[in-house]
Amino acid sequence: MIITIDETHNPELRSWLDSANDSGTDFPIQNLPFCAIWTEDEDEPAHLSIAIGDKIFDLVAASRRGLLEGKIADLLLEGIGDLSTLSEFFPEDLRRLRASVSAIFLESAPKAVIERAEKCLIPISQAEFEIPLTIGDYTDFYCSIYHATNVGSMFRPDNPLMPNYKWLPVGYHGRASSIVISGTEIRRPRGQNRSNPEMPPAYIPCKNLDYEVELGFFVGRSNELGEPVAISDAEEHILGFCLVNDWSARDIQAWEYQPLGPFLSKNFATSVSPFIVTREALMPFRSPAFERPPNDPKPLGYLQDADNEENGGLDVILEVYLQTEKMREGGIEPFRLSRSNTKDLYWTVGQMLTHHSSNGCNLQCGDLLATGTVSGRKRGELGCLLEITRRGSEPIRLPSGEERRFLENGDEVIIKGFCEREGFRRIGFGDCRGRILPAE
Amino acid sequence: MIITIDETHNPELRSWLDSANDSGTDFPIQNLPFCAIWTEDEDEPAHLSIAIGDKIFDLVAASRRGLLEGKIADLLLEGIGDLSTLSEFFPEDLRRLRASVSAIFLESAPKAVIERAEKCLIPISQAEFEIPLTIGDYTDFYCSIYHATNVGSMFRPDNPLMPNYKWLPVGYHGRASSIVISGTEIRRPRGQNRSNPEMPPAYIPCKNLDYEVELGFFVGRSNELGEPVAISDAEEHILGFCLVNDWSARDIQAWEYQPLGPFLSKNFATSVSPFIVTREALMPFRSPAFERPPNDPKPLGYLQDADNEENGGLDVILEVYLQTEKMREGGIEPFRLSRSNTKDLYWTVGQMLTHHSSNGCNLQCGDLLATGTVSGRKRGELGCLLEITRRGSEPIRLPSGEERRFLENGDEVIIKGFCEREGFRRIGFGDCRGRILPAE
Repeated sequence: MIITIDETHNPELRSWLDSANDSGTDFPIQNLPFCAIWTEDEDEPAHLSIAIGDKIFDLVAASRRGLLEGKIADLLLEGIGDLSTLSEFFPEDLRRLRASVSAIFLESAPKAVIERAEKCLIPISQAEFEIPLTIGDYTDFYCSIYHATNVGSMFRPDNPLMPNYKWLPVGYHGRASSIVISGTEIRRPRGQNRSNPEMPPAYIPCKNLDYEVELGFFVGRSNELGEPVAISDAEEHILGFCLVNDWSARDIQAWEYQPLGPFLSKNFATSVSPFIVTREALMPFRSPAFERPPNDPKPLGYLQDADNEENGGLDVILEVYLQTEKMREGGIEPFRLSRSNTKDLYWTVGQMLTHHSSNGCNLQCGDLLATGTVSGRKRGELGCLLEITRRGSEPIRLPSGEERRFLENGDEVIIKGFCEREGFRRIGFGDCRGRILPAE
Repeated sequence: MIITIDETHNPELRSWLDSANDSGTDFPIQNLPFCAIWTEDEDEPAHLSIAIGDKIFDLVAASRRGLLEGKIADLLLEGIGDLSTLSEFFPEDLRRLRASVSAIFLESAPKAVIERAEKCLIPISQAEFEIPLTIGDYTDFYCSIYHATNVGSMFRPDNPLMPNYKWLPVGYHGRASSIVISGTEIRRPRGQNRSNPEMPPAYIPCKNLDYEVELGFFVGRSNELGEPVAISDAEEHILGFCLVNDWSARDIQAWEYQPLGPFLSKNFATSVSPFIVTREALMPFRSPAFERPPNDPKPLGYLQDADNEENGGLDVILEVYLQTEKMREGGIEPFRLSRSNTKDLYWTVGQMLTHHSSNGCNLQCGDLLATGTVSGRKRGELGCLLEITRRGSEPIRLPSGEERRFLENGDEVIIKGFCEREGFRRIGFGDCRGRILPAE
């Protein structure tokens, strides 16, 4: 069962923490995403925490104050707070923990609980975040058919989509070591550029630096090597979701990627948002899988399942904003470049996970999978500059009067994600930000 | 300086352990590769060890018996024996540790030392090995120009090598989670096969299962994100070498790999040998970088260095043997399929590492890089069945009377590696083995 709507999704639930009841908050009591924050004690590992309203609830502090009990609280007190470990060995306890936090923040909570909980809160604006789990392997897919068609048509106008595209979710391995948390500055990479085929390539700072807006999801249950995950079980292996910016050096990519795929054009940095929105919190925002045109093939049996077809999609809105240095200095708000939706993806997250394991590949708790650039059909729904400016040939104009083909030094890219649906509270993903530093 | 030949390479050095003096041993006292073994105590992590002669010297046991002292011994006694951690934080101590082990095994060692050391030895034949470090990320290159040309010509007869091939070491990200130690059985993967383009693809057991013989090398010094490693420093970032079998499902690969590269055709398993032969032990077996034909371009500046050109190559012989179930049952020895040499690689390991970091990508201690299939120019030097049987069209005949296009269930692939050079002791890499199990 992909969807189970229960009392935790009830939009009437209110918290004693006012900011959690704001209609615009990313983090109402119905969300409660995991994150990790550094504390002032430098010797301590980052504390597993939960975001609510405009605050971060420090779960280690809460355990110390006796607000949380049970297995997870014990482990947190011992300094074990890596979400990949906890979800691997204690998935049920983790679910119970989130339920306990919900109870602590409900309007109806006892006064003594509220008083203690208040002492475990710090403002989001003051928090320094860390990625709350260990990402062993990172895999990036290519599941937006609009993105694949747009990009493919630039390189192969007659034949934009490869023959395999509608049969399997195309994916490739990314680099885990260079995944950084939102807010980390991104150094413009150097690399081989051969934009002029008459000349030898040159090792120079990347000229066509781009972002890609993606939805990421973390594995929360491992499968053994040699044991594929059935499509009907795939969702149970997903812990939660985050925003991903798959920074891309287009000039490096064009020259290096054949025949084995993108490498240095991608692995200089990948940014993720600090918050892991749980699969449970997203239950109300499931949608049908992509409606394939009548002439498209049906997925093969191992990728097919009635439940996946009905509810395997996700109705998550992704927005990308750009703020240049000039805009920042002039007090001009970030400018929206796109707004797309993951329900337009050709493959569901369950299909990606099942396909990934279909050869027996072992996915481990904490592994990150990402959808690939989420683009829609229309002009305002394109998830990277390569598409928006048609490979730089049609620059965009910004409110500052500046133009952009690709990213310039000082530019900040801000990704936001959220879900909205009649009858439910809005659920947000926070931001995924990164500002470009000049090449060294 | 890539080469420093010192007293540890002196071929006259002899050990009181007779098997270490055998001319055919992989592990004379001049080698001393690291490995890790499981002990009978299931609660203990694998013990960091060193191979010598036909024995494994348990470094934890040796520390307990007071044979080893200093930082590393202290850490081993605390249960910290992961080679990626030790080489990250205590590289000098690790080098000293290996020197101490050499002293312990020298013929001239005091009798009391010998008596204690004997108690820390177990026969290699009884050892159960574990990978001695944490492999965060795994990258596979494509550095044999003969392999790339052979494979390319099957798919693009007119244009086998991509234009980038002679300008940069082509590489891509592999999967770290499915790296297994030699001896692990390899389950034949299932996957999408579309060998008949007139028919839809089918999800079936792989039909064209192959091996690829490669040399792997581990990172022993990390670089920070955003800080490339200069070619002159690259060798200092290499801890040591191992044998790699990059198992490949050719039918899955042909269908899935465009446009983002190999994925499920590779990530079902990658086997590594248990022994990490240190860079120090290989000093006498360095060779000049590949001699490029006059019309080939010179490497760009960041990939060029006089020392790399003179000594960046490696004279390591790689042999691949096949033993089918019928051969095993009939007592027929494994049959040699190929013998190739890493000195024929178009790019050096230093160039691979420098290129990998040239965009600022952070390589971390324990990361595995591999050369890609090592093939030579001649018929007997081809490093995978795809090349040997020309994509299955020219089956090989085995001493059992059997034929092989690709690997069958029950087949065992055995990779051996060694270095031989006048004036030095032979240095070996041990075996990297894997036997094929039927698909589930």
